[in-house]
Amino acid sequence: MFRRKKALKTEDTHIKQLADIVGPKEVLFHKEDLISYESDGFTIHSHMPKAVVFPKNTEEVAAVVKYCADHDLPFLARGAGTGLSGGAIPLNGEVIISLVKMKRLLHVDLENRQAVVEPGYVNLKLTHSISDKGYYYAPDPSSQYCCTIGGNVAENAGGAHCLKYGVTTNHILGLEVVTPAGDIIEIGREGIADVPGYDLLGLITGSEGTLGIVTKITVRILKNPEEKQTVLAYFDRVEDGSRAVSDIVSRGIVPAALEMMDKIAIEGVEAAAFPVGHPKDIEALLLIEVDGISAGIEEQIDDILDVCKKRNVRSVKVAQDEKERAKWWANRKTGFGAMGAISPDYLVQDGVIPRSTLPQVLQKINEVSQETGLRIANIFHAGDGNLHPLILFDARVPGETEKALEAGSKCLQACADAGGSITGEHGVGIEKREEMRFVFTDQEIQAQTDVREVFNPHYLLNAGKLFPSSGRCAEIKAEQKKAASE
Amino acid sequence: MFRRKKALKTEDTHIKQLADIVGPKEVLFHKEDLISYESDGFTIHSHMPKAVVFPKNTEEVAAVVKYCADHDLPFLARGAGTGLSGGAIPLNGEVIISLVKMKRLLHVDLENRQAVVEPGYVNLKLTHSISDKGYYYAPDPSSQYCCTIGGNVAENAGGAHCLKYGVTTNHILGLEVVTPAGDIIEIGREGIADVPGYDLLGLITGSEGTLGIVTKITVRILKNPEEKQTVLAYFDRVEDGSRAVSDIVSRGIVPAALEMMDKIAIEGVEAAAFPVGHPKDIEALLLIEVDGISAGIEEQIDDILDVCKKRNVRSVKVAQDEKERAKWWANRKTGFGAMGAISPDYLVQDGVIPRSTLPQVLQKINEVSQETGLRIANIFHAGDGNLHPLILFDARVPGETEKALEAGSKCLQACADAGGSITGEHGVGIEKREEMRFVFTDQEIQAQTDVREVFNPHYLLNAGKLFPSSGRCAEIKAEQKKAASE
Repeated sequence: MFRRKKALKTEDTHIKQLADIVGPKEVLFHKEDLISYESDGFTIHSHMPKAVVFPKNTEEVAAVVKYCADHDLPFLARGAGTGLSGGAIPLNGEVIISLVKMKRLLHVDLENRQAVVEPGYVNLKLTHSISDKGYYYAPDPSSQYCCTIGGNVAENAGGAHCLKYGVTTNHILGLEVVTPAGDIIEIGREGIADVPGYDLLGLITGSEGTLGIVTKITVRILKNPEEKQTVLAYFDRVEDGSRAVSDIVSRGIVPAALEMMDKIAIEGVEAAAFPVGHPKDIEALLLIEVDGISAGIEEQIDDILDVCKKRNVRSVKVAQDEKERAKWWANRKTGFGAMGAISPDYLVQDGVIPRSTLPQVLQKINEVSQETGLRIANIFHAGDGNLHPLILFDARVPGETEKALEAGSKCLQACADAGGSITGEHGVGIEKREEMRFVFTDQEIQAQTDVREVFNPHYLLNAGKLFPSSGRCAEIKAEQKKAASE
Repeated sequence: MFRRKKALKTEDTHIKQLADIVGPKEVLFHKEDLISYESDGFTIHSHMPKAVVFPKNTEEVAAVVKYCADHDLPFLARGAGTGLSGGAIPLNGEVIISLVKMKRLLHVDLENRQAVVEPGYVNLKLTHSISDKGYYYAPDPSSQYCCTIGGNVAENAGGAHCLKYGVTTNHILGLEVVTPAGDIIEIGREGIADVPGYDLLGLITGSEGTLGIVTKITVRILKNPEEKQTVLAYFDRVEDGSRAVSDIVSRGIVPAALEMMDKIAIEGVEAAAFPVGHPKDIEALLLIEVDGISAGIEEQIDDILDVCKKRNVRSVKVAQDEKERAKWWANRKTGFGAMGAISPDYLVQDGVIPRSTLPQVLQKINEVSQETGLRIANIFHAGDGNLHPLILFDARVPGETEKALEAGSKCLQACADAGGSITGEHGVGIEKREEMRFVFTDQEIQAQTDVREVFNPHYLLNAGKLFPSSGRCAEIKAEQKKAASE
């Protein structure tokens, strides 16, 4: 309320003009209002934006973008701000275009299995809106109770159930996009999976807000599986747990989810909001879910129990009812935040590896922990080789933040060395820009920045993200621009 | 043999230089040798290439490309030449880079479920190479016994079993690509599904040979399903068959394949090499396959039989053994070619529609047939709404080819009007360039040609394909270039 009165009292022409577009109540520009927009889920970095605007529709987004483009103002889009790699941090004092007020479910078409949402629509709401009809939206990042589908598109978000069902890009059928020049284009078509021409849908999805601003999203929705069964298995040795992961997949089972937590992670989740009562002396647990048509489930569960036994499981059980299943998942999904219960600060990393290299990479992460003296918890999507080392540290201890960042980078190097990659679902953002060099040559990075130049030639949209900074004209331009505006 | 001796006898400097790169035996340049390269599976158009070269490895491809780029020679890549939209036709008298001699299976990694192949490796060979270990490669275009995986990547090929398993792009983990400048870049990483940065893998896949030449491909391989069951259902009314398709999917079943043929198509396949004995008086048949873990299959089959009965099926049966199943599939897979048994010529179209609009679009295609007086057979992937109207005509009758092309365009317009698109798996090539306007605005086409410009700035690689020609500098440049060289 307070801010609304103040919105008109400014001498800044840009703010006034932006207020003319979105309405004076929909612009924040006072320092105290901007503080919560300095950072996102990657809290290690922060920078003050110039302003935050809250457009209510595509036309307002396009008008704001056009204004910024015409006046050489850097800008970026933001959803719920839950991103873990800093993609929404206004490095260059951007005008932040918050999409949280564009949060409508526009259309549900059960016959063709699709729904159309605005970018600020919260992920979990979609499943809640259609679950009574027997449908759901598959990508389920742990933050799904608050993250937006627009943000999911930007980061190509994953989740525990992406092993079987695929990440966000596998569920996007169409996008309406405002280009960095302020034009509105449609990409993909509702209702059909394939469109001719280049796959711009795939290109925009996961481009971390650097190619355009998504203003409308057509997603695929799925029929609820007839049955789900969930298994919890405790192991005395990490290696046995890792081997069980490979064995399950080798038997031709594709679980809906295949999650792993190590000892420190278990200590964390047991100290947090949803303890399950996991034994404290185990080295690893697996949470395995299979779903599908009822008739096939029992056999798969038997197979999984058999694998676990052959890999020396200490104990294993099947969830007896939905309540027990929900409890196990709540425990798992609060995993990252739970680290707060056992450490003042933590840094989550997000590497991907070929599944078969799991034991050796976990060993390497253990070595990084010993070298740096920082505890590292592992809680991750084991089935698709998507690791999440959680590096525990105390930012109040001088030098420890830097040490944590270094440990994170070493974990990513281990993933890259094993033939993997530096991000599965959290994005590169500003966090992993330099680590892009672990997996791409200069030429390969150049091919990507050349593509960016097509869409974003003046680097006003979300500059300084996704690519390493040195030796590339793109970033130099952005930095010059920034310097000039300071 | 004959041509090998002649290869050295030429005064053409370019041919000599190309022969220096790939060896004199690996260059064709005499008119009689070039005739079979004038066209591909889209035989309505043809144009003479300048030469055909057969590189044996990536370095030779890169050297040929560099030579062409340095000497302003248009060029394009060709696999088995089975493409149905003219993507490999040398419109500008290109140097054709044939990849059929790069046909090795380089690596199989069962544990991480992947294989690495050269682009000239034939699709079906991959499944044959790994089937004894219990694995297969999913994308199965009808031409899979001879088409190459490189060509599949270029066209993002589909197939009967793509309903459940997805098209080529869903099975590509990594690519080695020679850019139009002759640089070698790697895109994606073996063994992992996600890479950071822009999805260039998706961008190159399905780009119809206009962004680069793929020289190495890492594909995902799948474990053979434990069981397959196949159902054949005959309907007296097309509409009942169409409704059954929607009903099956609505019940939450995802068949591995869900194929439909109408009366004229059935007449064709029964007159061709693999007749099954389908009744001649039915209006439609469905071929439905479910696969997976044995325990779940029976229930799905019961559900499918129940749907068919409710939709007034005349008769329905389940394949009794692998022999019967194989016979049904051989009958279906020779479907396009079978049209040759009932018509001197045919043109296959490739529209995509939302599944729920199937009855109305089939009705519209029927009207196109009546308007043009040409018979149109329908044989298609009904489950994913991927139509294949086969327009029967006689090229010897003056004007009938044009009438067939017009009928094809009208069928695509009907698909686009129903909220669909103009190609599911055959590509745009030169065939459907103008029809791109049915689904894209000028601005949306511009966004794509801008992307092409990043990779292919001088339009030497496969110019004149994929995009409509008028009003765009790209094509004008290409046409000027062509005119200048003639």
